[in-house]
Amino acid sequence: MQRMRALRKTSPDKAEIQQVPVPEPAADQVLLQVSAAALCGTDLHIYRWNAWARGAGIQLPRIMGHECCGEVVAVGENVFGLAIGDKVAVETHLPCGQCLQCRIGEQHICNNLKLFSIHTDGCFAEYTTVPEICARKIPQEISSRVGAIMEPLGTALRSVLESKVAGATVLVTGCGPIGLFAVASASTLGASRILASDVSAPRLEIAGRMGAHRILDPGREDPVEAVLAETGGYGADVVIEASGSITAIQQAFRCLRKGGRVALVGLPSMPLELEIGKAVVFKEAKIIGIHGRTMFDTWTRMENLLVSGKLDVLPAITHVLPLDRWQEGFDLALSGTACKVVFEP
Amino acid sequence: MQRMRALRKTSPDKAEIQQVPVPEPAADQVLLQVSAAALCGTDLHIYRWNAWARGAGIQLPRIMGHECCGEVVAVGENVFGLAIGDKVAVETHLPCGQCLQCRIGEQHICNNLKLFSIHTDGCFAEYTTVPEICARKIPQEISSRVGAIMEPLGTALRSVLESKVAGATVLVTGCGPIGLFAVASASTLGASRILASDVSAPRLEIAGRMGAHRILDPGREDPVEAVLAETGGYGADVVIEASGSITAIQQAFRCLRKGGRVALVGLPSMPLELEIGKAVVFKEAKIIGIHGRTMFDTWTRMENLLVSGKLDVLPAITHVLPLDRWQEGFDLALSGTACKVVFEP
Amino acid sequence: MQRMRALRKTSPDKAEIQQVPVPEPAADQVLLQVSAAALCGTDLHIYRWNAWARGAGIQLPRIMGHECCGEVVAVGENVFGLAIGDKVAVETHLPCGQCLQCRIGEQHICNNLKLFSIHTDGCFAEYTTVPEICARKIPQEISSRVGAIMEPLGTALRSVLESKVAGATVLVTGCGPIGLFAVASASTLGASRILASDVSAPRLEIAGRMGAHRILDPGREDPVEAVLAETGGYGADVVIEASGSITAIQQAFRCLRKGGRVALVGLPSMPLELEIGKAVVFKEAKIIGIHGRTMFDTWTRMENLLVSGKLDVLPAITHVLPLDRWQEGFDLALSGTACKVVFEP
Amino acid sequence: MQRMRALRKTSPDKAEIQQVPVPEPAADQVLLQVSAAALCGTDLHIYRWNAWARGAGIQLPRIMGHECCGEVVAVGENVFGLAIGDKVAVETHLPCGQCLQCRIGEQHICNNLKLFSIHTDGCFAEYTTVPEICARKIPQEISSRVGAIMEPLGTALRSVLESKVAGATVLVTGCGPIGLFAVASASTLGASRILASDVSAPRLEIAGRMGAHRILDPGREDPVEAVLAETGGYGADVVIEASGSITAIQQAFRCLRKGGRVALVGLPSMPLELEIGKAVVFKEAKIIGIHGRTMFDTWTRMENLLVSGKLDVLPAITHVLPLDRWQEGFDLALSGTACKVVFEP
Repeated sequence: MQRMRALRKTSPDKAEIQQVPVPEPAADQVLLQVSAAALCGTDLHIYRWNAWARGAGIQLPRIMGHECCGEVVAVGENVFGLAIGDKVAVETHLPCGQCLQCRIGEQHICNNLKLFSIHTDGCFAEYTTVPEICARKIPQEISSRVGAIMEPLGTALRSVLESKVAGATVLVTGCGPIGLFAVASASTLGASRILASDVSAPRLEIAGRMGAHRILDPGREDPVEAVLAETGGYGADVVIEASGSITAIQQAFRCLRKGGRVALVGLPSMPLELEIGKAVVFKEAKIIGIHGRTMFDTWTRMENLLVSGKLDVLPAITHVLPLDRWQEGFDLALSGTACKVVFEP
Repeated sequence: MQRMRALRKTSPDKAEIQQVPVPEPAADQVLLQVSAAALCGTDLHIYRWNAWARGAGIQLPRIMGHECCGEVVAVGENVFGLAIGDKVAVETHLPCGQCLQCRIGEQHICNNLKLFSIHTDGCFAEYTTVPEICARKIPQEISSRVGAIMEPLGTALRSVLESKVAGATVLVTGCGPIGLFAVASASTLGASRILASDVSAPRLEIAGRMGAHRILDPGREDPVEAVLAETGGYGADVVIEASGSITAIQQAFRCLRKGGRVALVGLPSMPLELEIGKAVVFKEAKIIGIHGRTMFDTWTRMENLLVSGKLDVLPAITHVLPLDRWQEGFDLALSGTACKVVFEP
Repeated sequence: MQRMRALRKTSPDKAEIQQVPVPEPAADQVLLQVSAAALCGTDLHIYRWNAWARGAGIQLPRIMGHECCGEVVAVGENVFGLAIGDKVAVETHLPCGQCLQCRIGEQHICNNLKLFSIHTDGCFAEYTTVPEICARKIPQEISSRVGAIMEPLGTALRSVLESKVAGATVLVTGCGPIGLFAVASASTLGASRILASDVSAPRLEIAGRMGAHRILDPGREDPVEAVLAETGGYGADVVIEASGSITAIQQAFRCLRKGGRVALVGLPSMPLELEIGKAVVFKEAKIIGIHGRTMFDTWTRMENLLVSGKLDVLPAITHVLPLDRWQEGFDLALSGTACKVVFEP
Repeated sequence: MQRMRALRKTSPDKAEIQQVPVPEPAADQVLLQVSAAALCGTDLHIYRWNAWARGAGIQLPRIMGHECCGEVVAVGENVFGLAIGDKVAVETHLPCGQCLQCRIGEQHICNNLKLFSIHTDGCFAEYTTVPEICARKIPQEISSRVGAIMEPLGTALRSVLESKVAGATVLVTGCGPIGLFAVASASTLGASRILASDVSAPRLEIAGRMGAHRILDPGREDPVEAVLAETGGYGADVVIEASGSITAIQQAFRCLRKGGRVALVGLPSMPLELEIGKAVVFKEAKIIGIHGRTMFDTWTRMENLLVSGKLDVLPAITHVLPLDRWQEGFDLALSGTACKVVFEP
């Protein structure tokens, strides 16, 4: 039996590179040789084994990592749409295929949704297996590094696609990877003015390079006043909330114009307190929660934009490391120094 | 100068019928002889002069009432679209005509919105004046009593129009007039299953007559369990929230299926506490605040449905009284005995 | 090998009941025992072997019929979502699962679309096989007769779902089965006024029973004048074109109001000649071609409406016959006497 | 009475600069001092007095020209939203304000629509009058030359806004000013691949500079084959038809993928012959006629995009001339040498 290196969370207080068997693809799965895998906030939660991770139903040991790009090296017997040699990016939402949502074109929010690397082993490894439906073939023009971040990019792009940003003023709250990808997507899709807020100066600097016209540090100025001043007192047409901060979300609604649109992507760790009348009803705010990419309309548009060069996400990838230096990558991300960290196994 | 009877809020603790001058229409206004006027929850707030009323910027004395139907008896010099004798219902949102929202087809949420009877004198009187743009001509087939409730009916109808209810399961939380109108509208627009919740048995009984297939008293059964049981565990496709109750809103999100739609119409008196992740993001809930009727697409569809007889709202009008018996109407409404009370001057 | 009776088109000038082997389901197929099957215009084309049929790539002999309801009696080895005993209706669009359209939620217009009974054997037989994805499980409350017409009903319902009919005036041109189903669907979904046109008095009579407020025989009155008179000179908000008649389509555009919506469902046998400026551009007409049901949002809403009793389609089923009397059914349909004919094997 | 120079069509075979009185604004109008005015195909029709012009109900003599930018120099007594000194671009659709369309937010396709310079005197003059509602205040950052072409630019932008071009392949047929503006708009709004066709090499060259990735001369290659080859055999996601050529429109439908969207902007001089089944129904094509800009959502987005610099339309303005050299400008446009010609009075 062939073996491979894999970063496993082995116990609440430990994660390490181990030698494990290369998995075999089930009938409806493909085996991927991982060419690049990106670090996500979720991985940090699991690494630290915080409250969320403890409650997520993760069975240890578990191979970490879910954002990845790889090459198909073996296929299950019922796989007909992919072949050995195909380059793929991984869709991390594993749908059941049978529920109401799966049947009406909403399989990305399957009622029995499983998540890659939470309910299955992940991709911080030399090889990984995914169901055929979650292995998105991508063209060779897309580099492995970019392929590895298509999953979070797709989430950000979708939040923008749902928000009618053409010729509109867009506020992006939170400039982690998702927020930065939202800035880039809004710029590509014709937002006329993009405001980006974060408490980290380096992230704001990257936001400026990715298309933000105005950066806002809520630690240095009042973001509500700033947005109102920038919009003639009306407020932003669109808010993409990618911070998960309760304060930022509350402020975001105050920054929104009457009739504006809000995409909620960030995940707060506490309940939000909101005055529904002022924040939503009188404004007739339109709010949408975004948990993933449509399968696969979002992917198709994303791929087209990447291939055509209209969407450039490289500034957000601040570090590329061999998987053996995973500890360094995790530390960079936890300290807030890094934005997107990509591992190459 | 001609005089008329009018119900005026004269001081924080007093409201009474007084003789006042019949108002003169300004250049862009029409003078209406009121044929019917309906009592709204807002009138009760003003009557009781509660915290909301005290903060709403109402200058006393003020003629109360904003939902009404009447006949044009005089027109200002710049009025070209209405003539003496026209039957009209009143749109209570008075737009400025100059702001961003007014210019992009969202004048019902004008950035400088004035409200009839809050910022101007209202319609619990023999005569009232409104800007031409807020005097919606209606056909004679629509009775004055129905004309008087088109404003709240339009709010309810719009919440349904925005929610794609055709062939869907709709939960209406709160069976006051707006909730009941939402039940009727959802039934007319093809909701396949309508669940209605309220703590008042008489209101639930009316909901059943207006199209609800299943009524729910949260005081007698757990509404979340009931809705999940009725929907095979998925939750409702659509929630129309018309109660303004914090508990009801929190439960509403738990009653919603993944991918479901929520229209927030009710106005809570306290902040809402909500777990955004579970309630909105993972579900990809689509939420819209509804503060009024589009001017005048909603009105046009509503009028067509009323004239054709496809929308029947009479069961919600539980009391019709002469204006002189206003105190009785207010008491009925405050006690929860009445649903919609209509006054005829 | 078990044998069954099946109506086969055996040569250009012949169709007959024959004894043939009961088919075996492939790995991804189910075997259905047909409980009811409905006659469609397409079957008449194949029966008469007209120009369309000759060019459709049909290999003879071929078991005819595509609209059906049945019970699962065997499943292929890769079928996981259906079980023996399930009641199903058949979706007749067989998608490839691999093309662009299949991947972005438009598999009903698959780029490599195969059609049940055109590219495969059909359902005018005791048994038939269909891919699992095309076997839609339906509840027992839906009768087999209604299950057999869900395919054309879904096409009609979708044309209405795409046309925003709530509170609108809808003109349905052509009162064959699809047109009648569109009348019923428009009525259920809240059209405030439905006008239906056809040259057949019996079909118009059924249209009246299914919800049309005004019926129009273009042989007896000018339909354009009539529609304009009924709509205050504006024209209809929506046209559902189900006749396939060139003249009717040309008139339909003249009957449409500025800003109106047109669903084109009927299939003309000749090219349409249209003045694009007047008919489309100046009116800003919104036109959509409808070739099928979304898989499976349309089906889900349809099923809900049928189960709840809000959508009644029985008046359109004018004849139910045993399959052995197929010739009688075909003759009734060809003569225009029948509307929908259902066979029970 | 003050006099001004104006280019008037005085008889079927004559147009000339004449001295005429400066018009006085009516109560709801403003008087503009014209700073720039652009030449449109419609002006050429009127100049040549072709069949369309003869049938358009134009009363001679008539001051020509409708696309313009100017400064408010006087206001009527009922004008409240504009002041002397304001810079404005002219919306050329003059709505009645009273019809169904005007009341439901579709005043740009008013049922009683009047057109500036067809039903009123136009703007190839030193001064012109327009209703306040058609005088769109624009910021000083937008140059007069660009202000003068905002009307056709808005038509092009709207055709793109209605077509969901983000990450899509867009074919623009016809590279006159509207087509070129559509190319630029599609590029700004995130089309991933833009194909542009025309028979004029200079226009194609400009299309390339404005964002087209692939230019097509139907005189040199088969456009259907070329588009299919560029799209892997699927066809384009979107077609913006701006040529008005019957052949181009027929080809456009063959270039469209199943499920694609078509915006029809060009106005053919003859009826179109189309096989509805193949071109529309089987493809489920979504078609929209575009006759103007929404008032004023399109204008607002356009203004934002121009001010932010995200939309650059200057390459399409090939000539700027003093009004006295109007003959030269008309000749350049008629010969196909010029693209957009702007006059400065």
